[in-house]
Amino acid sequence: MADSLNCDLKSLSPLQLFERVTEQGEKVRALKAGKAPKDEIDAAVRMLLSLKLSYKTTTGQDYQAGLPPKDLVLINNGTTKEEDEDLVDPWNVQTSNAKGVDYDKLIVRFGSSKIDTDLINRIERATGQKPHHFLRRGIFFSHRDMDQILDAYENKKSFYLYTGRGPSSQAMHVGHLIPFMFTKWLQEVFDVPLVIQLTDDEKYLWKDMTVEKAYEYAKENAKDIIACGFDINKTFIFSDLDYLGTSPGFYKNIVKVQKHVTFNQVKGIFGFTDSDCIGKISFPAIQAAPSFSSSFPQIFNGKENIQCLIPCAIDQDPYFRMTRDVAPRIGQPKPALLHSVFFPALQGAQTKMSASDPNSSIFLTDTPKQIKTKINKHAFSGGRDTIEEHRKYGGNCDVDVSFMYLTFFLEDDDRLEQLKQAYTSGELLTGELKKVLIETMQPLIAAHQERRKQVTDEVVKQFMTPRKLAFEF
Amino acid sequence: MADSLNCDLKSLSPLQLFERVTEQGEKVRALKAGKAPKDEIDAAVRMLLSLKLSYKTTTGQDYQAGLPPKDLVLINNGTTKEEDEDLVDPWNVQTSNAKGVDYDKLIVRFGSSKIDTDLINRIERATGQKPHHFLRRGIFFSHRDMDQILDAYENKKSFYLYTGRGPSSQAMHVGHLIPFMFTKWLQEVFDVPLVIQLTDDEKYLWKDMTVEKAYEYAKENAKDIIACGFDINKTFIFSDLDYLGTSPGFYKNIVKVQKHVTFNQVKGIFGFTDSDCIGKISFPAIQAAPSFSSSFPQIFNGKENIQCLIPCAIDQDPYFRMTRDVAPRIGQPKPALLHSVFFPALQGAQTKMSASDPNSSIFLTDTPKQIKTKINKHAFSGGRDTIEEHRKYGGNCDVDVSFMYLTFFLEDDDRLEQLKQAYTSGELLTGELKKVLIETMQPLIAAHQERRKQVTDEVVKQFMTPRKLAFEF
Repeated sequence: MADSLNCDLKSLSPLQLFERVTEQGEKVRALKAGKAPKDEIDAAVRMLLSLKLSYKTTTGQDYQAGLPPKDLVLINNGTTKEEDEDLVDPWNVQTSNAKGVDYDKLIVRFGSSKIDTDLINRIERATGQKPHHFLRRGIFFSHRDMDQILDAYENKKSFYLYTGRGPSSQAMHVGHLIPFMFTKWLQEVFDVPLVIQLTDDEKYLWKDMTVEKAYEYAKENAKDIIACGFDINKTFIFSDLDYLGTSPGFYKNIVKVQKHVTFNQVKGIFGFTDSDCIGKISFPAIQAAPSFSSSFPQIFNGKENIQCLIPCAIDQDPYFRMTRDVAPRIGQPKPALLHSVFFPALQGAQTKMSASDPNSSIFLTDTPKQIKTKINKHAFSGGRDTIEEHRKYGGNCDVDVSFMYLTFFLEDDDRLEQLKQAYTSGELLTGELKKVLIETMQPLIAAHQERRKQVTDEVVKQFMTPRKLAFEF
Repeated sequence: MADSLNCDLKSLSPLQLFERVTEQGEKVRALKAGKAPKDEIDAAVRMLLSLKLSYKTTTGQDYQAGLPPKDLVLINNGTTKEEDEDLVDPWNVQTSNAKGVDYDKLIVRFGSSKIDTDLINRIERATGQKPHHFLRRGIFFSHRDMDQILDAYENKKSFYLYTGRGPSSQAMHVGHLIPFMFTKWLQEVFDVPLVIQLTDDEKYLWKDMTVEKAYEYAKENAKDIIACGFDINKTFIFSDLDYLGTSPGFYKNIVKVQKHVTFNQVKGIFGFTDSDCIGKISFPAIQAAPSFSSSFPQIFNGKENIQCLIPCAIDQDPYFRMTRDVAPRIGQPKPALLHSVFFPALQGAQTKMSASDPNSSIFLTDTPKQIKTKINKHAFSGGRDTIEEHRKYGGNCDVDVSFMYLTFFLEDDDRLEQLKQAYTSGELLTGELKKVLIETMQPLIAAHQERRKQVTDEVVKQFMTPRKLAFEF
């Protein structure tokens, strides 16, 4: 009985365990209040103590009535949505606010931490480099355990980076570059290895697409990713459909995660239903597993427990909340995270840019002319209706998409500040602001296209071959 | 709309589609009866025609009211149980009848076909060999599409065999040998390749066991399987934990199956609940995938669509009903099946022999003395209470476990018939029958142990290395 109880409890998440302890506590109180026979009360108390012990073993914390386990308080919140709340999960981003999602609220809801000036200064001290403008401008705005990464780094303990992409089509847009641009910077300033997951299996499962097509998109997308300038000696890019069948270490971690997550949990976190295919239901484990270094024995020389840092857009956080819940139960360190805001659609910040609507996006394949036309025609303006009004009252940078894009892509802080003041005061017109954006984006995209041309199939193959990287672990 | 409808319909099983057509037909009738507006009726009729088309595309059959799709009628029946019915699923076998499970009823319930004299004679003609005593004595009693395997074989079209084992412990018992003994015979008389799956991942998911332990058991069990005498040039044995991470072809088939099976379906077939871990929920796809030759590109030279024949105990049928449901939807042939009865526990045929109860089983590691003691002490007897009564009324072979075991292991038909008559008439006493069984089992187990000693780790490694087998495809 004790054995089968323990066995049962092992499959419970900290939150489920917390609820079991709470229930049992209530049962003991009820028995005592009802003056139940002594042996019945004793049995219930023994069960309560056993549950509390399991809770402590699993969470590393003492049970405290009314205080659910840390880090798990907000699990299940990925898809729940109060009336005035933004909808944010791995498949949807929607808000009624033209300024975009309320990120401060999201930090509270997801239970992550804000990237504040202290943390940014600490990153600068640790790396000896000026922080990336994505950090300075709050584009990467939230984190989990980045302080622990820095503690370890300052004590000469290395870590690795993990990010990814779902290859849903051949065409990537500029928004897709944000995590990769930032990851490249992190790789350079910290000098750490990087793994990039292409979830072609996910796209096969979710879309009306063949396995072969999904794999083809993965390889095409790899070219755009490589064109961001990653160091081939320090970066491993992999397609799930390919790598999962090449690495027993990776599959073993997947099956370990799959043993420790119930359907109830993925239902709560991702909103799956009974009509979803079993592939979707078990997929979160496949996105979780690269957070553990033993998934890459060829890189880490078989060493386990190397700390992982994941830069990603905040909509991917539910996967990693789940991963962090499971990690200690399978003897692995929790991955740390750096979260970015969403890249807004040209039409406005109410939703993120989407590859499936060509007019919502600037694609990496767009010509200078297409870029100009799209920005002029579709970029939502915070300007006034007439030139006279604009001169008089000024434009609104908080909702102006051209200005938002410039905060992503115009690296010169002073220039950006000047533009902001000139637009807000009415001195700068919408057309003029759009012209600055066009002149920023055109050479940026052209340079990307030039670099992409250099990426041959042979180079992609090298990046995607499991191998030792230029690090000793 | 049409697109998204088709997309939706593609994810439905034939049975779900059948239900959608039926519902829509009722809706049309109701609209007509209620004299609804013409355009409303027209829209409903268009939808009905579209659904019927999808049904035909998916099943290859015209929709017929009241006639669910062939082969699927009985899906979901694996775990449902009427009051007087035997319980049979991959984890439980239970009956109230001392003669054991009612196999004729099971054939009707599972929708399989009986292996009759015609089929046995046809196997004899096709192979030119006397049928195995497991066939002659109804130990392999049920099949799916064995006639198609023979049609193809007679036209010089080859097939391959697939069987397996869940390595739940180091110790295997004699019951575990039944499918392997029969599979070895099939391999010899048909001269075909064989793949043997060791589901160590399943055992890790279901039991309180580490990944390492499960893999160790898989390799230990492989020794007992190899000791049955399989030809190393024609047999590939694989552990899931190992092979899944070594074969992209295998993983691609798994993800294809996972896309085409919903949680609702596995809930119906296997009785999973919302509290089950996502590993269990998606596991059936891993047992399904070896039914498709593209999971073994190294054996079949990359050729797909080679027919598969699965010899297994009937409790494994739910996995393969699911596989046969999915196969045509992912462009693969349905595997054919040969089902065996269960091997009874020493205590009686109400349940199958279990490795977790040492007294219910004769283990492959038992000494001659242990075999003798277990049979004498535990083998349920069909004899009478006193010698006088036994002489007068005779024993009952239908419930006598020693006699049942002899039908499995005593190859000499005449001798078996003599024993039956002598026991039934009362001429042969229980102790004497047990003595025959002891004398049959002791040399059989000793010979197995001798052969197992020859199986070195090196030999296991060779069997478990993905490689070309001695066949051209």
